[in-house]
Amino acid sequence: MRVEIISIGTELLNGRVVDTNARFLRDEIKRVGHSLKLVTMVGDEDGYIEAVLAASMSRSDIILMTGGLGATHDDLTKRCVSKVLNRKLVLSAEVLDTLKKRFEQNQVDIPASEQKQALLPRRCMVVPNRYGTAPGFICQEEQVVIVCLPGVPKEMEQMWTDEVAPYLAERFCKNDQKVTLFARTCGLREMEVNDLLAGMDAQEGISVNLIARNGGVDIGFTMMPDRHNPVEVTVARIKMEVEKLLGASLYAWKEQCLEEIVGRLLASKSLTLGIAESCTGGLISHLVTQVPGSSAYFERGLVTYSNQAKQELLGVSADTLEQHGAVSSQTAREMAKGVRERADTDIGLGVTGIAGPGGGSEEKPAGLVYVALASRKECLCHSFRFTGTRETVKMRSAMVSLNMLRQYLETGYVR
Amino acid sequence: MRVEIISIGTELLNGRVVDTNARFLRDEIKRVGHSLKLVTMVGDEDGYIEAVLAASMSRSDIILMTGGLGATHDDLTKRCVSKVLNRKLVLSAEVLDTLKKRFEQNQVDIPASEQKQALLPRRCMVVPNRYGTAPGFICQEEQVVIVCLPGVPKEMEQMWTDEVAPYLAERFCKNDQKVTLFARTCGLREMEVNDLLAGMDAQEGISVNLIARNGGVDIGFTMMPDRHNPVEVTVARIKMEVEKLLGASLYAWKEQCLEEIVGRLLASKSLTLGIAESCTGGLISHLVTQVPGSSAYFERGLVTYSNQAKQELLGVSADTLEQHGAVSSQTAREMAKGVRERADTDIGLGVTGIAGPGGGSEEKPAGLVYVALASRKECLCHSFRFTGTRETVKMRSAMVSLNMLRQYLETGYVR
Repeated sequence: MRVEIISIGTELLNGRVVDTNARFLRDEIKRVGHSLKLVTMVGDEDGYIEAVLAASMSRSDIILMTGGLGATHDDLTKRCVSKVLNRKLVLSAEVLDTLKKRFEQNQVDIPASEQKQALLPRRCMVVPNRYGTAPGFICQEEQVVIVCLPGVPKEMEQMWTDEVAPYLAERFCKNDQKVTLFARTCGLREMEVNDLLAGMDAQEGISVNLIARNGGVDIGFTMMPDRHNPVEVTVARIKMEVEKLLGASLYAWKEQCLEEIVGRLLASKSLTLGIAESCTGGLISHLVTQVPGSSAYFERGLVTYSNQAKQELLGVSADTLEQHGAVSSQTAREMAKGVRERADTDIGLGVTGIAGPGGGSEEKPAGLVYVALASRKECLCHSFRFTGTRETVKMRSAMVSLNMLRQYLETGYVR
Repeated sequence: MRVEIISIGTELLNGRVVDTNARFLRDEIKRVGHSLKLVTMVGDEDGYIEAVLAASMSRSDIILMTGGLGATHDDLTKRCVSKVLNRKLVLSAEVLDTLKKRFEQNQVDIPASEQKQALLPRRCMVVPNRYGTAPGFICQEEQVVIVCLPGVPKEMEQMWTDEVAPYLAERFCKNDQKVTLFARTCGLREMEVNDLLAGMDAQEGISVNLIARNGGVDIGFTMMPDRHNPVEVTVARIKMEVEKLLGASLYAWKEQCLEEIVGRLLASKSLTLGIAESCTGGLISHLVTQVPGSSAYFERGLVTYSNQAKQELLGVSADTLEQHGAVSSQTAREMAKGVRERADTDIGLGVTGIAGPGGGSEEKPAGLVYVALASRKECLCHSFRFTGTRETVKMRSAMVSLNMLRQYLETGYVR
């Protein structure tokens, strides 16, 4: 079903309050398998609320409104719903009774302003509020269901869970079967991932959604399971196809960072790590140490920006620097070996390149990066050619370095 | 002016990406004194995007769209704007030329798919993108201004600041007499800045807007100039008051990063820098090396996570570590002196602390950080107590370290 969320309240627009309700409902909608189409945040102004509601009703099946229910003067939701649906507000004896009882409990007379809470659009279903005084309600208008809940997160969540979710499940969810999958990659540009997955996106019932972020590309797959196979079979088939298409660039099937994956692998194998960085300038060490407990496996990181530092701290030879340059596979290898040997760690990473925008040449352009990995057994080195800003080149270099380490550890390296 | 924000991207609706762009623009709109009426988040679907845009145009003066610009198949913004405004997409020779040049720099031929980036709605104004390949654009249709920017926050923010904000100021703000000022601070929490500036916020005609970000707090001042004084006088008076209230925590009166300020100071004084980090894990070196040309003054950074590394690489004495611990002013000082002497730089920074969440004790809780600065003349050390997550503690530690360096350099240190 097509769902829209409308969050009402000027405090949301000016940033005094963060709209956590939309986040909660978004996750709930996803969980149930409905399709969220729009989220609108609107202030306490009749005209805008009415326009947004009317537009939503013309295109969606379920409209979830939060906020603007209550006794203060700027709470306009009921008035707007009443106007757009052309249904009068009528007094609910049942709601008024509940309100009176609640105030009696506290030995207080119900204020006149609070009695307004019992005014609700005609023919609506009341959603009781266990924690507050503003009831919610559900209106059905032709094929559209409009749900109005208060903006206080605690009240809204309870009302959603106890009343609205079961109501909607009963009413709608029977035939919707969409499945979603999420994957993370690094080392490829958005366009490259797009091209590699072009064939998948063309398959019936599958849609692919790419997001470039943090130096990598995340992929969302949404699919309608085919009628002849159980969901698990479809998911397994798609995973296999994607893994084949993307190879080692694919590093996770869930929301997980490379530094966490690498950290877990190092910790579980009781291996230690030393890092020698040039063009990434400390970024890899920074990422590795973002993980709590990283001091258990991360021994040191050396940001050897000058040639002198590379020689003194890592033992890169003057010959290598002269013959091949600071940006070369030879230097990267000596950096990785140097930091590993001197720190006496199991693994050493060495990264050198040209972050740009300056410093490039025809032979060695900005964006050229060498990553070397040394273990007690061997030393590997890969080269990369990145485009983009200095920041992008640094970030993508850091990601492929950590990914190279991930692959090495996952393919079974032990001390 | 009535403003609407439309954030485009299925990744926003399903929660994989948080819509920080809407937040940024919301604060900007507030700062300039416009009125934000609606924020809509819509997925990558033509029908919905078109409906939302058309509705916005009927009721608002400025429409800010982000996302959905790019060469991949799910980037639909241009197509939708073209349809709703009934303006064909035409090839911009100027944009194509810029794109070609950018790819040439990296010695790569421009892919056919990237050439699509140069297709823009007729009669639009191009907004150049310094950091990415997707240009933005501004269309004016009757009295409504439609601004389309890419969804990558860094690109969007630069384009907003350099092009769109000045354009809108020129176009709309002429009778608006409001004056805005912007300041950046570090080392203080939002609430602390709030308390320090409480007296200012209470002054007639001045409003203060705080935004916590990147480990610091940014401050927007909006003021109605008083009738008896020219604007410059009011601005000068406010700047003086704020500088007195915030002291050294205030590091810039414009959108400038600490690492840029520090870089400029080092370069102009021909000084070199070495950094020894423990709890910040490479973050300070990473920030310093974000600045193009930093290799001219940044010699090396040592991430000495283990005690052994602190002793071997920096010469921190075993006695100091045993008597005072790795997290102490003594260790911080020896780190700063050690890296400075061994790298033979003019300045050495040493940072040690407990990033948390684990590793703290009653005497030395998580968030306790020592920052030392050594020059050829002297060695200073300050301690800080931060609260927050591991990431926050790292970021705030990095900021105060760079700020301590800024102060030292600004107060006139020369070799």
